[in-house]
Amino acid sequence: MLSKNTIKYLNSLKEKKYRDLKNEFIVEGEKSVYEFLKYPENIKAIYALPAWINQNIEKLKLINNINEISVDLLKKISNLKTPNNVIAIVKKTHSTIDFNHNNLILVLDGIRDPGNIGTIIRIADWFGIDYLICSPDTVDPYNPKAVQSSMGSLCRVKVLELPLDQFFNMLPHDFMVYGTLINATPINNIKLQQKAVIIIGNEAKGISNNIIKFVSCKISIPSYMHELKVKGKADSLNAAIAASILCYEFKKQNNNNS
Amino acid sequence: MLSKNTIKYLNSLKEKKYRDLKNEFIVEGEKSVYEFLKYPENIKAIYALPAWINQNIEKLKLINNINEISVDLLKKISNLKTPNNVIAIVKKTHSTIDFNHNNLILVLDGIRDPGNIGTIIRIADWFGIDYLICSPDTVDPYNPKAVQSSMGSLCRVKVLELPLDQFFNMLPHDFMVYGTLINATPINNIKLQQKAVIIIGNEAKGISNNIIKFVSCKISIPSYMHELKVKGKADSLNAAIAASILCYEFKKQNNNNS
Repeated sequence: MLSKNTIKYLNSLKEKKYRDLKNEFIVEGEKSVYEFLKYPENIKAIYALPAWINQNIEKLKLINNINEISVDLLKKISNLKTPNNVIAIVKKTHSTIDFNHNNLILVLDGIRDPGNIGTIIRIADWFGIDYLICSPDTVDPYNPKAVQSSMGSLCRVKVLELPLDQFFNMLPHDFMVYGTLINATPINNIKLQQKAVIIIGNEAKGISNNIIKFVSCKISIPSYMHELKVKGKADSLNAAIAASILCYEFKKQNNNNS
Repeated sequence: MLSKNTIKYLNSLKEKKYRDLKNEFIVEGEKSVYEFLKYPENIKAIYALPAWINQNIEKLKLINNINEISVDLLKKISNLKTPNNVIAIVKKTHSTIDFNHNNLILVLDGIRDPGNIGTIIRIADWFGIDYLICSPDTVDPYNPKAVQSSMGSLCRVKVLELPLDQFFNMLPHDFMVYGTLINATPINNIKLQQKAVIIIGNEAKGISNNIIKFVSCKISIPSYMHELKVKGKADSLNAAIAASILCYEFKKQNNNNS
């Protein structure tokens, strides 16, 4: 049994203001929790069905605060339609940016969809990108839906929320800043620099007007539409899709060069 | 005012069985409807707010069946949280596959998430891929959520649902069939053939066991994770993300070769 206060506390973490206040967030579901359990020092508490706890004793041995809960209670505190065995409270980790050991940094400028930001965190993890810089108007990466779609990758990727002009002012001069804009040079036709920042703009509006001045190289993703001239075309790719193609091409060129 | 029967009919199209029976589906929201209006012969009916109809008279001039509805009625028949001005009933178009004029074909083997299939349709449109073959256990591409996330691209990409063994049996022998499998050759290290089929497997299980036999070349997307040996890794990319990187690399190699 959990106290009313604990249930209230768990539910409060669904809101950004309480996540910011407490510096904690919720991770749900077996698969994601397994990823976070690789960093036991960041786990504040585990709430899980008794059977799940029994099955995972080995993985939980470094966790002090483990609580058995019923299926009904899990449903009550879960954000998922189909709650999945376990909920973890995880501490946010803070870090400063190490520009010396990181060649590629992603900047999100007003990404609004939690699913997109979660997917972008997963992409960053896949491509070995350590830092994701989020503008203050980007959706909270610790939002339950974002955490869910990041599939545990949030335990490895460092996410920093800060005003983008502040970030660009501290960025060393040997970094090239790439931004995607319609009709700019397709990425397959340019030699991309190793030390790079890629800005991913808002889903509808792209990169904000006050941020474009920081872009030192305008790029685009090549389109191969048949009916370009006849019947119009898809006017953009989804933000996460654009991010994935950019990271792939950067890492590919980078890797082949090194 | 719409009759009760019409409202019932519009709501019935939220279910696959009625979409299949009537060969029609619903498209919602200005942006998507504008795309479909480029093919007026496929529009069966438009239901929209009077103001929207007035603003779009030019675009609607080839549409016979236009119905004014109220905001309340729009809410009643819409699938969206925030209904957006207009709903269209669109006829499904059927086509046979033209293998002679299509070099790259995408096959979806058990994709379950409507958002993923919608995003993949948008990717296909961007990369000029005409055909998307869906296994019977793939989520219906005419599902409202799938149509929504395809952002109008469904009006250009031809989607065929058929058993995959049937498709592979009719595939000409000069097509190479690529399938993504863990630890297979990274795509950046191989010369990809021009005439190609790419299979995108189920989000959790990948390509089904009974379909793997049709794969003539096993490929993977390179990962560049730092902590590969230390703390585990993201075990997969989202299906739509994988599709986008594969299409990008195929089209890039193809385009440079031609």
